[in-house]
This record gives sequence, structure tokens and C-alpha cells, in this order.
Amino acid sequence: MPPEYLGIDRAKSAERIERDIETLAGPQYTTSSEAIRRYAYVDAYRNTLDYFTGELEAIGFEVFEDPVGNLIGRNRPPGETAYGVGSHCDSNRNGGKYDGTMGVVVGLEACRVNEELGLGLPLQLISFLEEESSGFGEPLLGSRIMAQRIDEQHLREGVRHLDDGRSFWEHAKEAGYDPDRWQECIHDLDGLAGWIEMHIEQGRVLQDAGERLGVVTAIVGLLWADLTIYGRADHAGGTPMTLRQDAGSVAAEVTLELERLAREAGEGTVGTTGQCEFKPGLKNVIPGEAHLGFDIRSVDAESYRGVARGVAEFAQQAAAKRGMQVEFVQRSDSPATPMNESVVEALAAAAEASGEPFRRMPSGAGHDTQVIAPHVPSAMLFVPCKDGISHDPSEEANPADGALAVEVILNAIRSLAALR
Amino acid sequence: MPPEYLGIDRAKSAERIERDIETLAGPQYTTSSEAIRRYAYVDAYRNTLDYFTGELEAIGFEVFEDPVGNLIGRNRPPGETAYGVGSHCDSNRNGGKYDGTMGVVVGLEACRVNEELGLGLPLQLISFLEEESSGFGEPLLGSRIMAQRIDEQHLREGVRHLDDGRSFWEHAKEAGYDPDRWQECIHDLDGLAGWIEMHIEQGRVLQDAGERLGVVTAIVGLLWADLTIYGRADHAGGTPMTLRQDAGSVAAEVTLELERLAREAGEGTVGTTGQCEFKPGLKNVIPGEAHLGFDIRSVDAESYRGVARGVAEFAQQAAAKRGMQVEFVQRSDSPATPMNESVVEALAAAAEASGEPFRRMPSGAGHDTQVIAPHVPSAMLFVPCKDGISHDPSEEANPADGALAVEVILNAIRSLAALR
Repeated sequence: MPPEYLGIDRAKSAERIERDIETLAGPQYTTSSEAIRRYAYVDAYRNTLDYFTGELEAIGFEVFEDPVGNLIGRNRPPGETAYGVGSHCDSNRNGGKYDGTMGVVVGLEACRVNEELGLGLPLQLISFLEEESSGFGEPLLGSRIMAQRIDEQHLREGVRHLDDGRSFWEHAKEAGYDPDRWQECIHDLDGLAGWIEMHIEQGRVLQDAGERLGVVTAIVGLLWADLTIYGRADHAGGTPMTLRQDAGSVAAEVTLELERLAREAGEGTVGTTGQCEFKPGLKNVIPGEAHLGFDIRSVDAESYRGVARGVAEFAQQAAAKRGMQVEFVQRSDSPATPMNESVVEALAAAAEASGEPFRRMPSGAGHDTQVIAPHVPSAMLFVPCKDGISHDPSEEANPADGALAVEVILNAIRSLAALR
Repeated sequence: MPPEYLGIDRAKSAERIERDIETLAGPQYTTSSEAIRRYAYVDAYRNTLDYFTGELEAIGFEVFEDPVGNLIGRNRPPGETAYGVGSHCDSNRNGGKYDGTMGVVVGLEACRVNEELGLGLPLQLISFLEEESSGFGEPLLGSRIMAQRIDEQHLREGVRHLDDGRSFWEHAKEAGYDPDRWQECIHDLDGLAGWIEMHIEQGRVLQDAGERLGVVTAIVGLLWADLTIYGRADHAGGTPMTLRQDAGSVAAEVTLELERLAREAGEGTVGTTGQCEFKPGLKNVIPGEAHLGFDIRSVDAESYRGVARGVAEFAQQAAAKRGMQVEFVQRSDSPATPMNESVVEALAAAAEASGEPFRRMPSGAGHDTQVIAPHVPSAMLFVPCKDGISHDPSEEANPADGALAVEVILNAIRSLAALR
């Protein structure tokens, strides 16, 4: 028998969540007065880790930082079984208060409520280093180090700071860490029987449907590609329409075809032309070259790869019809990460029991959880964010939804723990 | 009775034209070792004027520079009837040897042949200052000053050097000119009974048709406009295809519609989307804003304005269908300049008599002649340029075509003079 659903004092939790989030939006915690901007090893980041450490220690958690700076707080000795909660607390350079940070704050609040109500759940909070790539240009850096999904040579020499070009290794050492011991970070995951990351949705599906939670079933697969179209940069006045090789026209056809292919592939598949550049980029010169950058995603690898193949073929044919050539370069192809069924069902059952509107949904964005999932049974919980906006100072989410997430996460962990 | 067609020693003229062009491509005549780069008042430009002065004085012409630096050479006293030939000898910053300069060289060679063969034609060579806008960012500056098509306040304070931001006025004075007397430049045109400018085509019509000359019937009207499309910069992963307001998709539709409208408008009308920018321009963000820059031309004002209206309406509708808005801003609208029928027919008759393949055609590019035409009966003669390339170091034209142009220009002036 699963334990009965447990309601918490959500108003009280919402207040504490709001206080945490607003505190961490203060001038000590960001290097910009216009936005939240914090990344690995700057003072604003150090202060943020110190804040979480203080709050966790206040409820009796043991807190440490691993050899590169991922933050871990536990209410059980290392190695003993525990359930992980948290997210990341760095931001993009022009960021808001909620992306990442709200997930750590909700994790912290779950730890607080666990102690306050004497639930006795074994918990481990993680705040991952450098998810946003805003310090060193490498996304998911802390979780990838933890999961050993990075090459040491690259980590030593290839990962360089965006501001000063100096190596990650140097910066980590200066900040008091011991990157030579980076392989020990895998032990952060020792004993973890589950992992739940709360994050703002970064889309408008929940808001538009009037739902308060999204239980993430998979993190989508992602393919990035670039297309260059080679035309002829003739004079816009001196070249009749019939004598042109206009790379811009092919770019326009391809942009619309990617949209058509993604729509045709059906729900859950998306295709975006986020980048478009015409060269030389003058009004009176026919584009002699056009560049497009594509982002194609789906939980179904056949689907996103099919769209990518389709758009590459179309581009080649559309260019050939006008006597032009194209170059299609695939930059990356990361298959989808399915979430663990037991964790998903525990979250969905708790959400159902909460009586609040929710849905199961894929995550269209990447998260540290996709790196952790192969090691620990994992899932994610989304809360709505206003108009789907993220990575911007105007980012907004509701602390009350965070409190609901705390309640659902604690109930899910109670069922998971009861099943062991 | 028109005078009988007169053949000249074209091989000799071609040699001299080639020598002039190659001389003016030497290191004294350009500020760049990679390209021809010369603009108002730099040493390379001064040396170029000195070259033409020397060559003209050698055949007995009187040469002077007007109060801003347009070069004038005459074989008759000022005020007496003469026929004008020439072009401009400045270049764009990454220019070639032929654009403009070949027209002045061909004008010079016409003067030489006139003296050599004792044709007795009254001739005036003009080399216009700063056609390319590469010194001060103002196209057709010398001819506009000459024709008084510029506001004095703007000329004094608004026209600033692209390199140092200092005023045209200061630069002109430092170079030894007297810009306070700029209104006297109109007298450069006193006594001119006709004006013929030879220029490279800057298109591939002549090359592709195997023709050696183009007799310009009109300089096309030109409309420039900018379109901004306002969408929503949502996350490319988190936003299903059905919830998007993708400014890039509208930009693509509009780009193709402009092409369709220009084709539909028929021969002589061209429409180009030379600029396209997506914002924020990241692969993983749906374009929240897209900018397009248009160039639309035709000899028929109703035609190019109709295409502009059509594309603006289409953009508004295409955006509205997707719940977006657009802003269409017309930057300029310069109607076509018809060439003078007598001068056109004199050139066409001479071209016909030469036995060489030629056509009547509009000029798709702008030229000083469009500024002079309201004051002096004017026409232009095009010679082919390789692959239509201009404004680039790889620009290429054939001195033999220049020699043919000399022959045709002299014959046209002979008929025009005979008709007076």
C-alpha cells in the first residue's frame, strides 16, 4: 500500500520559496544590475552556494562541495541511500531569477519541510555547477564532470573562460577546488535511489492550458545543423530576375520547408531556423551566400533525424533548380533521454492526488537530469513560467507552484521509498 | 544628311585605354594593395586627377577643378558649346580598375582621337568627385553638388568623412578647394549641348547575349525599404509548432513573395531582398524579430511602386495570419531618369553603323548621369564586364570594347553636332 497523500502548508512554503528567490536576486548574487548573471567561481556564485549551505546547515544537513564545485547537502552519511533533489544555480548572462535557481530552492524547501514535519525521508540536495555555459561556454559542465561524460584532456586545456580565455583548470584551482580529483565527483551519486529536478517549463504549454505542473516523461533528442547556400552576388539593379542565382530565395524556401516538415512529423517534433544571414548583406547586392542554423528536436530519434534528412535533401534540390549548391553540416545529434518510469509514475500519482491540473509532457530543453539519468532513476517536474519566457530578466514563475512542486516531490519520494 | 560613319584605329585606342587603366591601378593610385581604393582628397585620388590633367594638357585641353574638386577639361573656352564625355574616377573601398575610371579613360581617349584625327569636335571631359560614397558616405556627391541637388546646411555639417568624422567642408578646404563657392559648380555645365557617360554594365546581360555595347535608354527608378517583423522569441525546444509566432517564417514568405511580384511585373522590374537578419539569432531561440531590406527597381514608376505596395500588403497579411505585426518603412523613392532621345538615337545609330552587336537597355544601377540629365541632353553607353562583377578587385572589362565605345561616341557626337 502506498502511503496516504500528505498535504503540506503550501502558503508557508510559498513564502519561504519567494524569500529565497528574492534574496538570490539581490546585488550580492549577480554581477549585473540589469539581470541575473552568475557563473562558476565569481563572487556572486560563491555567495549563492554559501546561502544554500547556510540554509541546509540550519536544518541539520551536512554540506560539501565536490572537487570542481558541485554543491551537495545530505541528511544521511555519504553512501547511504537517499533521494536527490535540486537543479543548478548559475544563470545565463542576461538571465532571470527562476531558471535553475527555483529548482534548487524548491529542493531546499523539500528538505526543510521533510525536517519540519519529521517525514524522515533520506534526502540529498544537488546544485550543479555551470549548467548554462555562461562561464566556460560548455553546457551541463558540472553534471557532465560528475557523470564522467567529458574527456580529461579537453577539460584540462580545451575548456576556457569566456571572459579571459584562461583554462577551467586554472580557474577551479584559484577558486580553491582540486580539479585533478575530478573523477571522484562520480561519488556524488553514490547511494542515490532517485533524482527529481524541478525546473521552469521554458515554454507556454502549461500556461496556455491552465495547468500547474508538468511531469516530464523524456528529455527530447536534439540535432543542430548549419546550411550554407552558394549563389552569385550580382548587382541588384543590373541583373534581371531571370539571370539570378539568389541564395536568399533558396534560404527562404528551406526555412519554410523545415517548418512544414516539423509540422508534418507531428506533435512532439519541432524544427526551428533560428539563424539566417545573407552575404554581403547589402540592399543593392543579390545575396551571394546565405547561412541558416537549424535546431530540430523530438523524443523520437527517427522523427528528428528524418526531418533533418528531409530538409537537407530539399535544400540540395531547391538550390539545384536554381543552379546553385549547398553545404549541409550536422553539428550535433543527442538522442532523447527517457525518464525513469517508476519516478515518472510516482510524480504523476502525487500530482493526481494533489487535485491540481497537470500533464505528462516531454522536456523540449536540455537539463542536467539528462546526464544524471543513465546513473540514477530520474524524472523532472515543470512549473509554468509567464509567457514561456526564460533566459531573460523578465522571466517569471509562481512561488505557489513551487510549493505545490515541493508537496508533489515529497509525496513521490514517500511512495518510492515505501516501494523499496 | 548625317556625316558618314567614321572608323578609328581601334587597336591603337585599345592599347592606350589599357595603358591608362593599368597605370591608374598602380600603387600611387590606390590606398590599398588588395584593391582599388580611392576617394575624395586622398593622395591616390589627387594623383589620379593629376594623371588626367597631364594627359589632357598634352593634347591641348584647358583643365581646371571646380570649387569642390570635380575635374573639367575643355578644348573650347568656357561657355562655348561643347559635348561632354567622362564619368567618375573614385572607387568603392574594395573596388576594381574599371568602374567609373574606364569611363573617364574612354572620354580621354575620345578627346585624343578627336585631336589626332582633326575631327574638330568641341569636347569637355568631366570626372565627377565622389560618386561611390566611399569617402563621405554620400553617393553621387560631386554631380549633386554640380547640379545643386544638395542642401547647403547638410553639405556644410551633415556630410562627414567615414574615416575621421570630420566635415566635408573641412576636408575640402584642407585639400585646397573653396567649398564656400560650391554653387558656382553649376557653371561646369554651361554650354554643354550633350553628355555621354560610358560605364561598365555591372550586370551580365551583354556578356550572356554576346553583345559589345548597351545604349542606355533610362536609368531605373529605385525604391529602398525595410521591413521588421515582430514575433515572439520563444524557446525552440519548449514551444510546439502550433504555439509559435516565428518572425523568421514570415520573413521567408515575404522574401519569396517579393521575388514572385518582381517576376510578375515583367521585364525591366527587379526586386531583391539583400538583407535578412533574425533576432536574437541563436539556434535554440525562435526568431522574435526579423529584419528584411528591399531594393526594388524599374524604369516604370507604377511598376516598382506597385511591387513595393504589394510586398508591404503581403507582409502585413502574412504576419496577421500568424498573429504577428510588421513595420514597413520606405527609405527612398527615386523615379527613373529617361535618357535624351536624340542622344540615345545618335548612339544607337552609331552602334548600328559600327556593325558590332549591341542593344538598347535600361541601366539598373545609379550613375552621375541621372543627376546631370535634367540639365543637359544625356545618355550612357555600357560595355560588358566579366560575369557582371563590379565593386570588387576581380572586376574585368575589355579595352577593345572601350575603343569601340570611343568610336561610337565620336560618331554620335558628330551627328549631334551636325544636327545643330
